[in-house]
Amino acid sequence: MTRWPLPPHMKRALALATEAAEAGEVPVGAVIVKQGRIVGEGRNAPRESHDPTAHAEIAAIRAAAGVLGSERLTGCELFVTLEPCAMCAGAIVHARIARVTYGAPDPKGGAVAHGARVFDQPGCLHRPEVIAGLGEREAAELLRVFFQERR
Amino acid sequence: MTRWPLPPHMKRALALATEAAEAGEVPVGAVIVKQGRIVGEGRNAPRESHDPTAHAEIAAIRAAAGVLGSERLTGCELFVTLEPCAMCAGAIVHARIARVTYGAPDPKGGAVAHGARVFDQPGCLHRPEVIAGLGEREAAELLRVFFQERR
Repeated sequence: MTRWPLPPHMKRALALATEAAEAGEVPVGAVIVKQGRIVGEGRNAPRESHDPTAHAEIAAIRAAAGVLGSERLTGCELFVTLEPCAMCAGAIVHARIARVTYGAPDPKGGAVAHGARVFDQPGCLHRPEVIAGLGEREAAELLRVFFQERR
Repeated sequence: MTRWPLPPHMKRALALATEAAEAGEVPVGAVIVKQGRIVGEGRNAPRESHDPTAHAEIAAIRAAAGVLGSERLTGCELFVTLEPCAMCAGAIVHARIARVTYGAPDPKGGAVAHGARVFDQPGCLHRPEVIAGLGEREAAELLRVFFQERR
């Protein structure tokens, strides 16, 4: 039996999450893709960079916006290993990202399918398409091992 | 009759908002204070910096965290001219800011007293004290003039 292979962009996000864990950061990775090409990527780094906003998604969004020379990432999609928090969901709205594909759900800190449900607010200016659960098993396993080792 | 003078930290945030307007950015300014001393400040700059996350609060938080050498801004307070959006409210939670004082309400984009109400979510990890309406008239006037000139 062969397990269905993950699409390469989510594989890359998982590799970035692994890099985060190796650096002692909560393992989350993110990639932004436009027309099949990676235009920005990032991983969690708030501890080492002394920056509470240094989540994987924020890093990827800032990188992509810099590369594209625009504050709007129209036509871009985001692959991220964990359900985005309120901060990152808000940034996704501001960036006008067309589609968000995430791996593991985050019932505590997530703000897409949980908590603040940022995209579902009546006043939300932009609603990306959302696909959940791609790479969920791999992403959740990275987080489980990370937190188990730190107990 | 003398109008009650605004505290200096909100005056500084309003001055930063004015700078933003002069640069063609939506006029919002923010200041982070620890033990009476400004440790970070920022103004809106998403257009000129090609960065959708470049809100005044994010800039101020990143600056303060850099100055203090920590991802946690424990014991710090934030003065911002406009009610924070979901992105900025999430960043305030991550930074563990003790108190948020804002000027004008933002019924459309705000996520403190409106919309996602990030701090009121049951799973919210940190709830800052919130004071609304300090400098509201001045902050709202800056926004009104800015958008009127761009119609």
